[in-house]
Amino acid sequence: MVSEYRLRRRVQFYETDTAGIVHFSWFYRYMEEAEHALWREAGLSIAPAGAEIGFPRVAASFDFHSPLRFEDEFEVRLTVAEITAKTIRYTANVIRGDTNIATGSLTVACVSKIAGEPMRSTEIPADIATRFEVTPA
Amino acid sequence: MVSEYRLRRRVQFYETDTAGIVHFSWFYRYMEEAEHALWREAGLSIAPAGAEIGFPRVAASFDFHSPLRFEDEFEVRLTVAEITAKTIRYTANVIRGDTNIATGSLTVACVSKIAGEPMRSTEIPADIATRFEVTPA
Amino acid sequence: MVSEYRLRRRVQFYETDTAGIVHFSWFYRYMEEAEHALWREAGLSIAPAGAEIGFPRVAASFDFHSPLRFEDEFEVRLTVAEITAKTIRYTANVIRGDTNIATGSLTVACVSKIAGEPMRSTEIPADIATRFEVTPA
Amino acid sequence: MVSEYRLRRRVQFYETDTAGIVHFSWFYRYMEEAEHALWREAGLSIAPAGAEIGFPRVAASFDFHSPLRFEDEFEVRLTVAEITAKTIRYTANVIRGDTNIATGSLTVACVSKIAGEPMRSTEIPADIATRFEVTPA
Repeated sequence: MVSEYRLRRRVQFYETDTAGIVHFSWFYRYMEEAEHALWREAGLSIAPAGAEIGFPRVAASFDFHSPLRFEDEFEVRLTVAEITAKTIRYTANVIRGDTNIATGSLTVACVSKIAGEPMRSTEIPADIATRFEVTPA
Repeated sequence: MVSEYRLRRRVQFYETDTAGIVHFSWFYRYMEEAEHALWREAGLSIAPAGAEIGFPRVAASFDFHSPLRFEDEFEVRLTVAEITAKTIRYTANVIRGDTNIATGSLTVACVSKIAGEPMRSTEIPADIATRFEVTPA
Repeated sequence: MVSEYRLRRRVQFYETDTAGIVHFSWFYRYMEEAEHALWREAGLSIAPAGAEIGFPRVAASFDFHSPLRFEDEFEVRLTVAEITAKTIRYTANVIRGDTNIATGSLTVACVSKIAGEPMRSTEIPADIATRFEVTPA
Repeated sequence: MVSEYRLRRRVQFYETDTAGIVHFSWFYRYMEEAEHALWREAGLSIAPAGAEIGFPRVAASFDFHSPLRFEDEFEVRLTVAEITAKTIRYTANVIRGDTNIATGSLTVACVSKIAGEPMRSTEIPADIATRFEVTPA
């Protein structure tokens, strides 16, 4: 069972903007990268080919404390904060050395995907849910 | 004085992901597009060449209710929710026809930018602050 | 029958990089935006839901002459340069006012898509091919 | 002196599109990622803070042979193909295992950057040029 992942990452040039810092939209992608790496560490893919369920994002937020710049090395510390029958909520801390860069939250829901029909909320299958545990506070 | 902007937009192919829907990171960009269009409507650019102040994002969040797909036409309704001496907070509703797609919030802060120094929080200049007013509830 | 499309566009903040100009990767997206708008003008979608064929890109290039910056207004002039049984080739000129910004080329191929199988090159269906004609030189 | 770099990379979810494959615009970013890693291996940053020169892209192309999908692991083999007084040209091969995914080319030029003036072509400083050598054919 996994409950946390630490993603090491370097800022790419195309992630910066004309203000000279990483564009804020990238932090949501960094958080998702860490989530998918967490799933791989749990022996899973969040989106295997032909899957009949998926995990769309239902809420995501960030507070930004300090900027990241081109070639900065940083870490995304993702933790499993809550698991319900149909959702998983993560929290993320983005840090560069000792500097707190940003603090985020991401909630995803399990849905069934049938071609041509709207996505429908469904329970997380047991063989997935049992791979994760909430990080002790 | 401006207090709200309605951005009409169509989903581009590169905004979709392998789940067949707009990747959630794009909503933060849609919200910012609407913000910059609001500033232009106020006769301003949020980032004119050579500016000594800037408006980095300090918080941004979205709740996602329904997906958008390739070529969907949608609207971002951005409203000025709060103005303080140093910050502006917007709220955003993303809709497609009568369908509520997503609800977001964005807070930006005014900073002074001096080359080689960290950004420092500063008051929004009066000739900018006076162009905006909070949307009546 | 359509043979050319002129896309009017403004540079978005997230398209710029720390060099203060539009990141070059965006030009390929601008060119594709114009292509999809051309298809809509022809009464078509290049990727309708449930389609059994698709049009992956087989080659794309750009020569960059002059930069674009935040909020610049520009035009992408896309023309159909060649149509074969299985491919379409476009050329693109990106201009800002009288300034030649970039010159590009894009070749797409028609493929059949069967779930779980590799994409296979196939002939462009007549009801699509007949909507386009090569731009006279 | 460096002449080639091999970048190991995994496809991220946000790099895929609704066709289920990596959007072609990403290959240009992959190629640039490898370029910047090559420069770091040469002990350089291509865009250090406060630099008075820069290396904008003047041409970039790709031929696409086979698609990449979510979570695919792949390699970008970047080689220095040509160095002139003012430009560097790279070639890139993107491969996944034994499969040839894409073949690209990138030409960058050295420019001087003075605030408020257009970029002007200039010679690559010797302390940069001497770090690279053309890959033997």
